Amino acid sequence: MALISNEDTLKSWNDGPVKQSILEFLKSSTQEGPDYVKPADRIATFDNDGTLWVEQPVPVQLNFLFRVFANTAQNDPSLASKQPYKAILERDMTFFQKAVEQDPEAIMALEGAFAREWSGKTPDEYEAEVKEFFATVKQEKFAANFTDLVYKPMLELFDLLKSYEYRVFVCSGGSREFMRVISEETWGIFKENVIGFSFQVEYHDGVLTRGDTVLGGVAIGPGKVEHIFARTGRLPVFAVGNGDVDIEMLESARFRLLVHHDDDEREYAYENGVEKLRAIAKEKKYAIASMKNDWKQIFR
Amino acid sequence: MALISNEDTLKSWNDGPVKQSILEFLKSSTQEGPDYVKPADRIATFDNDGTLWVEQPVPVQLNFLFRVFANTAQNDPSLASKQPYKAILERDMTFFQKAVEQDPEAIMALEGAFAREWSGKTPDEYEAEVKEFFATVKQEKFAANFTDLVYKPMLELFDLLKSYEYRVFVCSGGSREFMRVISEETWGIFKENVIGFSFQVEYHDGVLTRGDTVLGGVAIGPGKVEHIFARTGRLPVFAVGNGDVDIEMLESARFRLLVHHDDDEREYAYENGVEKLRAIAKEKKYAIASMKNDWKQIFR
Repeated sequence: MALISNEDTLKSWNDGPVKQSILEFLKSSTQEGPDYVKPADRIATFDNDGTLWVEQPVPVQLNFLFRVFANTAQNDPSLASKQPYKAILERDMTFFQKAVEQDPEAIMALEGAFAREWSGKTPDEYEAEVKEFFATVKQEKFAANFTDLVYKPMLELFDLLKSYEYRVFVCSGGSREFMRVISEETWGIFKENVIGFSFQVEYHDGVLTRGDTVLGGVAIGPGKVEHIFARTGRLPVFAVGNGDVDIEMLESARFRLLVHHDDDEREYAYENGVEKLRAIAKEKKYAIASMKNDWKQIFR
Repeated sequence: MALISNEDTLKSWNDGPVKQSILEFLKSSTQEGPDYVKPADRIATFDNDGTLWVEQPVPVQLNFLFRVFANTAQNDPSLASKQPYKAILERDMTFFQKAVEQDPEAIMALEGAFAREWSGKTPDEYEAEVKEFFATVKQEKFAANFTDLVYKPMLELFDLLKSYEYRVFVCSGGSREFMRVISEETWGIFKENVIGFSFQVEYHDGVLTRGDTVLGGVAIGPGKVEHIFARTGRLPVFAVGNGDVDIEMLESARFRLLVHHDDDEREYAYENGVEKLRAIAKEKKYAIASMKNDWKQIFR
């Protein structure tokens, strides 16, 4: 049941056409009429980096991986000439740009490094490493914990969607297990609603460990839709993203919301990696949330 | 919040130690105290065949596969000498027994037949085939639709678990996509809470099709726990099964309920494929639901 107070949920959003279009879509898709969506179909999917939290100067998970892999390469100098270690040690971002652009060789090198690092480790061991990272590393510009740099307007949107009986999923190109460490406390989203890059799990003699086989490919571009469908049996009705790797997910949804990073003062302003999506969003009249103009408050 | 009327939910269960132990566990695990389970951890997992519906004389999905694969072999006689077609045409159940016992060669042959049959088809095409099967094929002994042979006591248990804020998942060795066709209407369980054997999904130019790569192995034995953890990020707290392939899932849970098929009149009585589980259940004092004695009504 939609609550009477729904309209007040988006407190950090300025009144304007974007907030209005969200409210109107949620009403029309949950009331009898031509736009009605039955409850079972009410799936909302959100990208993570740049959509739910700050992704500059490097995405949070890359920051984590850089530290872990640099440490590994220091302990095993034979790795220094191999990717992704070479790129990390030389601070060469072109390798990671290739991975984002779905270059098979770059992705395979990254997958190999993941496997080398965590294959055979238990979920608890991995979780402890991720928690240590969150407890000790701060975001540069804001000198704050990454989990404090989650966007308040998005958390309000989660609440609003839930009040209309939408089921909210987060789908990221990053590691599912990494996000699951913080998803419940930070987003109020159960681990099972977090979708992303993941490895085979192995269970022997009552012990779970991570294997070295990637499950279902990388969740970027068409891979986002593939992961979402595998997980939910559906395409999203409502989708939110901010980068070119979100295009297919957004195109597969009925309501498309783009987070536009245009606030260099309160967050960042950039167009890199979002050019194609911006062109499509303008042409197809997506809802485009300007951080600068549509959000009263950025961080939770 | 637990509702006052919880105790009345298990209407098709006779009063007795099994019903009592379920009610007591759900109370103690949701009230402050030594057995408390916080809401995020409240995961309940159910096997499907023999736990939620009749699995005799052959599991429903095997019935479906036999028909589809027999038809395929008739259209392509070169397949008649290959597995699983050979076993189906010769009505030789030993091949399928091997698959249940996780024989790698049998599983690979079955996976190949799945890929040959549905690789490149859309989810809608597959769903139409499954719906046609359910609309036309009846269970032999009861001359009834398979979906009418779902156990009413289990549907009541779903409701009871949900009232205690448990999240209910179904995890089967059978195909996830097959179960998802009927999960919402028959069980009241959203597709996304159905876990099982599944294939890579591919998304090209706005069209989803099934690929030919199995994702995460077969969900039997340790594979059940692997699929459950991959899907939820947790082990179950409450688990229900009926066969040897459920042992690892049950052992990974705190409350274990076994469905014992001992009612040849109203359903079936059999011990085949459940001997190991029965021994463990007795030794470790699982809750054992006797269909004959604990269930007032079998079917919904």
